Amino acid sequence: MDSDFGIPRELSPLQQLRSQYHPELPPCLQLTFAIAEVLLSFKRDTYYLNLQGTTVRVEFGDGTTVAEASDSHIVARAFPHTLGQPLAHFLREAAKVSDAHIITQLPSIRVGIVFCGRQAPGGHNVIWGLYEALKVHNANSTLLGFLGGSEGLFAQKTLEITDDILQTYKNQGGYDLLGRTKDQIRTTEQVNAALKACTDLKLDGLVIIGGVTSNTDAAHLAEFFAEAKCSTKVVGVPVTTNGDLKNQFVEANVGFDTICKVNSQLISNACTDALSAEKYYYFIRLMGRKHSHVALECTLQSHPNMVILGEEVAASKLTIFDISKQICDAVQARAGQGLINQKLIYIMKIMQSCTLPFTNFDLLYHSLAPDKNHGVILIPEGIIESIPEVYALLKEIHGLLREGVAADKISTQLSPWSSALFEFLPPFIKKQLLLHPESDDSAQLSQIETEKLLAYLVETEMNKRLKEGTYKGKKFNAICHFFGYQARGSLPSKFDCDYAYVLGHICYHILAAGLNGYMATVSNLKSPAMMTVKNWSQNASSTSTSIGRPAIHPAMVDLKGKAYELLRQNADKFLMEDLYRNPGPLQYDGPGADAKAVSLCVEDQDYMGRIKKLQEYLDQVRTIVKPGCSQDVLKAALSVMASVTDVLTTISSSSNGGQQFA
Amino acid sequence: MDSDFGIPRELSPLQQLRSQYHPELPPCLQLTFAIAEVLLSFKRDTYYLNLQGTTVRVEFGDGTTVAEASDSHIVARAFPHTLGQPLAHFLREAAKVSDAHIITQLPSIRVGIVFCGRQAPGGHNVIWGLYEALKVHNANSTLLGFLGGSEGLFAQKTLEITDDILQTYKNQGGYDLLGRTKDQIRTTEQVNAALKACTDLKLDGLVIIGGVTSNTDAAHLAEFFAEAKCSTKVVGVPVTTNGDLKNQFVEANVGFDTICKVNSQLISNACTDALSAEKYYYFIRLMGRKHSHVALECTLQSHPNMVILGEEVAASKLTIFDISKQICDAVQARAGQGLINQKLIYIMKIMQSCTLPFTNFDLLYHSLAPDKNHGVILIPEGIIESIPEVYALLKEIHGLLREGVAADKISTQLSPWSSALFEFLPPFIKKQLLLHPESDDSAQLSQIETEKLLAYLVETEMNKRLKEGTYKGKKFNAICHFFGYQARGSLPSKFDCDYAYVLGHICYHILAAGLNGYMATVSNLKSPAMMTVKNWSQNASSTSTSIGRPAIHPAMVDLKGKAYELLRQNADKFLMEDLYRNPGPLQYDGPGADAKAVSLCVEDQDYMGRIKKLQEYLDQVRTIVKPGCSQDVLKAALSVMASVTDVLTTISSSSNGGQQFA
Repeated sequence: MDSDFGIPRELSPLQQLRSQYHPELPPCLQLTFAIAEVLLSFKRDTYYLNLQGTTVRVEFGDGTTVAEASDSHIVARAFPHTLGQPLAHFLREAAKVSDAHIITQLPSIRVGIVFCGRQAPGGHNVIWGLYEALKVHNANSTLLGFLGGSEGLFAQKTLEITDDILQTYKNQGGYDLLGRTKDQIRTTEQVNAALKACTDLKLDGLVIIGGVTSNTDAAHLAEFFAEAKCSTKVVGVPVTTNGDLKNQFVEANVGFDTICKVNSQLISNACTDALSAEKYYYFIRLMGRKHSHVALECTLQSHPNMVILGEEVAASKLTIFDISKQICDAVQARAGQGLINQKLIYIMKIMQSCTLPFTNFDLLYHSLAPDKNHGVILIPEGIIESIPEVYALLKEIHGLLREGVAADKISTQLSPWSSALFEFLPPFIKKQLLLHPESDDSAQLSQIETEKLLAYLVETEMNKRLKEGTYKGKKFNAICHFFGYQARGSLPSKFDCDYAYVLGHICYHILAAGLNGYMATVSNLKSPAMMTVKNWSQNASSTSTSIGRPAIHPAMVDLKGKAYELLRQNADKFLMEDLYRNPGPLQYDGPGADAKAVSLCVEDQDYMGRIKKLQEYLDQVRTIVKPGCSQDVLKAALSVMASVTDVLTTISSSSNGGQQFA
Repeated sequence: MDSDFGIPRELSPLQQLRSQYHPELPPCLQLTFAIAEVLLSFKRDTYYLNLQGTTVRVEFGDGTTVAEASDSHIVARAFPHTLGQPLAHFLREAAKVSDAHIITQLPSIRVGIVFCGRQAPGGHNVIWGLYEALKVHNANSTLLGFLGGSEGLFAQKTLEITDDILQTYKNQGGYDLLGRTKDQIRTTEQVNAALKACTDLKLDGLVIIGGVTSNTDAAHLAEFFAEAKCSTKVVGVPVTTNGDLKNQFVEANVGFDTICKVNSQLISNACTDALSAEKYYYFIRLMGRKHSHVALECTLQSHPNMVILGEEVAASKLTIFDISKQICDAVQARAGQGLINQKLIYIMKIMQSCTLPFTNFDLLYHSLAPDKNHGVILIPEGIIESIPEVYALLKEIHGLLREGVAADKISTQLSPWSSALFEFLPPFIKKQLLLHPESDDSAQLSQIETEKLLAYLVETEMNKRLKEGTYKGKKFNAICHFFGYQARGSLPSKFDCDYAYVLGHICYHILAAGLNGYMATVSNLKSPAMMTVKNWSQNASSTSTSIGRPAIHPAMVDLKGKAYELLRQNADKFLMEDLYRNPGPLQYDGPGADAKAVSLCVEDQDYMGRIKKLQEYLDQVRTIVKPGCSQDVLKAALSVMASVTDVLTTISSSSNGGQQFA
């Protein structure tokens, strides 16, 4: 935690070029950016602001509720001060407003910022955006970076951010400007240390950059500060490569775009390699924690032959042997294609002898699906926890570890079922399953080589089939990879540079507005879909269920969503036809540079856009049905609107009105 | 070997953009390109050609000799037909030449092309360049691609290359347009099958795309064809990611530039990751066969903390324990930096209390070298064969395997010394060392996890030092990677696109000139430095020495070369100061796009350029010393030139006149 923080460093030509880039805004962010440039002071109603000649309307929405009605009393008890705050919503306003509402100067403020949790490309730009917003509004404002993550926060180790310091970190990857340690601000001791740091340093605001866990901690910290009458406001920023901090207000996490692009580049390279050498199956495990967002996005970008999503495994309750068999059957089907197509080739030969006008018979001939002894299979690292029997085994092991049982004694204390599974597994996996769990109670997913386990099981089975004569293809060869660390430190994509920079600006405006316990997406950290009671052991049938403290749920891949639907539509073709697609290395110039994540593009995520559309409809009705309109129009409008109101009231009371994220 | 060759396929936006790119030429290739566009007919003297209005002079150099004088009789015996052919050299000519020398139309020819050996980014562009050159000079010329590598050649499986087929493969990675199998055209059966294929298909030329092994095979095949009075001319193209097919005529191999850039991107990402998390040592093994060119180039591009070059290990005869100790000492030194600097920090504190005018004391304070518990170490895959005792062990194992000893029986039949080493090694490495050797008799380097072995040895030693109290840093944590497959299928860099495309053109001109046994670099495949007798077991003291067939030696990293010197100058700083540099993802637009390999830039490789420079000096002397010049000038010139001639005659007779590549 004592690295060379904030030191100027030698940059490569591309890094230099990038350091000179000032974020441009993709169309989807223009509205959000409008906020960032606004001069804002906080009032609980609709009012108007001047944005470089454009007027912006600020609206506050309803007080928020929790995602699951049954949890509401628990959440309400945990967040008496910060639950139920209104959504803040910013819109471009066409109409002219009087100058009286416009505030031009804001008081200087002191803000601290800290990296929590794993590094994600773009994190540095949150600091840059926040710094610029602070200085633009008052040159005397101060931004203190905490050195070495949460531990630096507790120890009050700070570095004042300056233009000089930022110079070689703008648009660069990693968290090395400030460093990071554990992603935890949770224990009484930690929370008190954070409170003392903010008080001692006279901070008006504390910005916490991190994922699901860190934003949960941020929410609790905000509540704790409010309770303690500490004047420091807490803001969270959704920065995580896992892409699992998602709901209708948070469409994307900083870092996810870059990680998926870098991984897709490498996956595609492996696909090209497989197709060139035609003798290997690549088993590629992808970093991404419990859920399979990274694997899904990478599949949509690079079209490997197969992906096994944890959510599918959990939904279908697949065992490790089911998965292995699925892969074996795929290998066999691919190897058998040539046999299936012998008939077609025969027909082709007849056609050739008839001298039909084929200009390139060779091409046609070889385009018939031949035997395939190669392939690429993606495996999300979280899959191991999605397999019911393995998850049960892991929970037993973790329970025994917590009881202090030594790793080498655990195998003797497992339940019969778990013991049978454990003894069956190859030694390298046994050793990895015995590792202590992470701070969020999940297994050390990055250390468990599920791809090697599956490759091992598939190889064993294919050799058996070969011997029995049920498989007639070539000997099965697997090469295993784990992609994660080598992507996490990447230069951020333009998307992540822009997004993070804007979020930095928004952090400032949330703080300037005196808001506490908000997440920088212009949405409430306690929004309906994000805050539910996390059931720590909800899937472990063998352990007792207990109610934990309220936490943000990481979002699963939505198996009813459009991104997954797109995958399913193409899965068979991807499996058999090698439709490999190489998005290539991250580009910063030219057409490839502005590419966006496929799942972001296909998912119908523009919640605020749809709210706006609805308001337009209401305005239209109001315009049509005004004094002077015909009796018929009024009658029709009344009848239709009465029924609309009825329907919506019914739906709202039964569902909380929000999209559900279980 | 039956893949969907030549099928049009879906390209990503970046792939589409790249497929529309027509190679531009970096300055170093402009001279070479002049050749490719020339209308050439073969004559054994200097003559002139018209190149789009520019005239080009073609010169033929001396007949070539072998690299090691002692081998010359063996090489001469092996290559009676193709040894001693002149170098063909092409220069831009400023003077006007009469039109009489310019040939405008060439007869149509039939050429076959085959991918041999491992795929390298850019391979497709050799085909494209050759195709365009063929069609420009005679639209009736035919290019046949052999499907599935050398096996496709033997089986006469061809695909006629057309504009349509090339469409989605221009500037794309992999070898999937044609596929590849083994990299061997060596046995009597194979050579005869190749001869039959070329005769049956009436080929005027056969182009073999590959590395050291394949170009050796190409040389032998050329000789065999000449002996058999087969009219097919054989041309080799240096395409290999290993970068080991190097001498004064071959400055670079197609694919090396891309591989080093992609690997450097990933290494740099790991560096950034290490510096952000500050708790891991990354041990990264790099694909690149026996020699360490890839590791050296990647080090110069990304500045990791440490690299262990095989050539250094071999030169210093380091044992596996020496290497492990070197790394341990580095880890300890980095962890101890903070202690060393306690004094400095103390001084800084005093300075602060004196209120010296430091504007940013924090920055200065933290810039003092602190404890470092992270790092990145590169390990070339070939290092395992460079360690003397491991190499001896491998040779014993391979010898026993050849004798038919079963893998599980080998450990009992090793010599006492090898047995002791073998028994010491952890099980996973034992298993990998017992794998059958490759077709070139080397170990299966890509399968031997040397990085894990070293990480294991270092961890064991650091834990011991920690226990003994000699090491006081944090617990040592290693994360291991193997980078190779995921780079090999990359989209080629602009450099490789251009270089490969031009080499394709040159292939055509070599064939059109009726040359046999040449390599497409406008140099002779039997050039002095490339053709020596390969001593199959030259380093294995325990087995008897035998003389093999002449082969191209892969070039080692030159420990007296400028690239290595650059590394040595910076090694200490790289080790201690984390001067990580991220070249970033491959760019196709903007400043980063034209970056060239560092080793290519620093090495003084422009042999032909220096020959030209010498000729300019000679011309100047001729201009100065002509009839009418003073007696003094003439006298001085005679005296100086007599001594120059003397010196050069002496040097030439003692050294063969060429740079030595042992």
